[in-house]
Amino acid sequence: MEEDGSVELLSAEEDKHGGVTVNIDDPQPIHPLLFASSLKASLSHWTQQGKKGVWIKLHIQHSNLVDSAVKAGFRYHHAEPHYLMLVYWIPDIPDHLPANASHRVGIGAFVINTKRELLVVQEKDGIFKGTGVWKMPTGAVNEGEDICAAAIREVKEETGVETEFVEILAFRQSHKSFFEKSDLFFVCMLQPHSFDIQSQDSEILATQWMPIEEYVRQDFMQKNQLFDYIAKICLSKLDGQYTGFSRVLTTTSSGKKTYLYYNNGHDWGLSASKEEQAN
Amino acid sequence: MEEDGSVELLSAEEDKHGGVTVNIDDPQPIHPLLFASSLKASLSHWTQQGKKGVWIKLHIQHSNLVDSAVKAGFRYHHAEPHYLMLVYWIPDIPDHLPANASHRVGIGAFVINTKRELLVVQEKDGIFKGTGVWKMPTGAVNEGEDICAAAIREVKEETGVETEFVEILAFRQSHKSFFEKSDLFFVCMLQPHSFDIQSQDSEILATQWMPIEEYVRQDFMQKNQLFDYIAKICLSKLDGQYTGFSRVLTTTSSGKKTYLYYNNGHDWGLSASKEEQAN
Repeated sequence: MEEDGSVELLSAEEDKHGGVTVNIDDPQPIHPLLFASSLKASLSHWTQQGKKGVWIKLHIQHSNLVDSAVKAGFRYHHAEPHYLMLVYWIPDIPDHLPANASHRVGIGAFVINTKRELLVVQEKDGIFKGTGVWKMPTGAVNEGEDICAAAIREVKEETGVETEFVEILAFRQSHKSFFEKSDLFFVCMLQPHSFDIQSQDSEILATQWMPIEEYVRQDFMQKNQLFDYIAKICLSKLDGQYTGFSRVLTTTSSGKKTYLYYNNGHDWGLSASKEEQAN
Repeated sequence: MEEDGSVELLSAEEDKHGGVTVNIDDPQPIHPLLFASSLKASLSHWTQQGKKGVWIKLHIQHSNLVDSAVKAGFRYHHAEPHYLMLVYWIPDIPDHLPANASHRVGIGAFVINTKRELLVVQEKDGIFKGTGVWKMPTGAVNEGEDICAAAIREVKEETGVETEFVEILAFRQSHKSFFEKSDLFFVCMLQPHSFDIQSQDSEILATQWMPIEEYVRQDFMQKNQLFDYIAKICLSKLDGQYTGFSRVLTTTSSGKKTYLYYNNGHDWGLSASKEEQAN
């Protein structure tokens, strides 16, 4: 409350879409009743101003305020370990609020040496536990991490081998892989620059360089159509008969750097500028 | 409380990773103090049992219990409009809990008729508002939706045109596109099966079939390196000089159907079985 008895409005940042964002991460605790009355007054204020979406980013230390926000009509939008994002749509028309992240992204690394030996691992846990199956190193792409960088990192962590990104050979999309979320899995070809194996990963039971034909012949590969396809693609790549997507770093008009993955195996002068092509 | 004064344990389902999941979606309200004591007793019980991760899926109608779970040591894992998932890791070793979804996925649709005219739209809102830029139909891939299906759906919604999926020509990954989340954007080539334009989408200002050269010549395309690359890839595809990733429906060993996207432009018998190849 202000000294004159009026309720203090929540401070909010305006966004480009006619909405506002309230960020609540004060080090001091906030009383739920005080928050509820500030929120109510703020919502009236934003409604009068013609605002659309109202976002509240609530640090986990203020978990005692979640209930007040929900009672005020907010719904959950997304959460990360240390905060919960709630949202409220003011207008009387359907909302155009952005959806939550829908996919997890993973990589599998196809790393082969000049003796046609594939870098493979056995995992301590997971679906292959105790099966004796040798598989490619795999792992999750972190938020903010490039797919090509994630592949290099995972191989280094699981096997100690240094690599360079070559191509994305294929990818698959699957659904309901973890709660309701979908999953994209990219098979990346990497060129090894070191060969000594030294795993730093407590999840890895064993690592080796394995003749690729032996890898493909594993019972599991034969029985799993998806794995069989991927193995065939890798063999074909090895024999010079396949082109995946390589990467190029591009700049958007806002100056953001972003990787574009595409088939660079054609001689059609993508790297040449329009001016050069016109001449 | 039970009649004998003991605290009732929360009912939980065991998972494959040595953890348990509690799903709280009772239609009746639950008192926070009752929940807190049940949770405390349950945690002791699960600790004695050697359980690892404890998940609580809390329906939004029970938002009054969030604070009790956090006070008991839980952190947020993820949230959807109607529930919040909290997690607690019991063992004294670092957790191997799966990460939250990290990426949103979008599509751009390259739809061209036999007169080399591209299907383009102008949007009412967003970064191109008021610029006069004609762009490919774009949109978000929903949770649980195939990329190829999302492209067909978005084109139908934005333009009324019926299409068939051909190939993914390229994709780009960008970061911090929405809060901390990353973004994957797939450029899909679709073949049109109808040509009359009829937009059902309130976000679309105008739609037309535009000569592709005119599309590429737009000022914006020339200034944005990423868009320029994508336009060149599309032109190259049109001239029969490019191969993207097409799809094949595969079955995993668990019987799940999943699309694999790969370069099918080589005659290397991927569709033939190993037996057939061996003969």
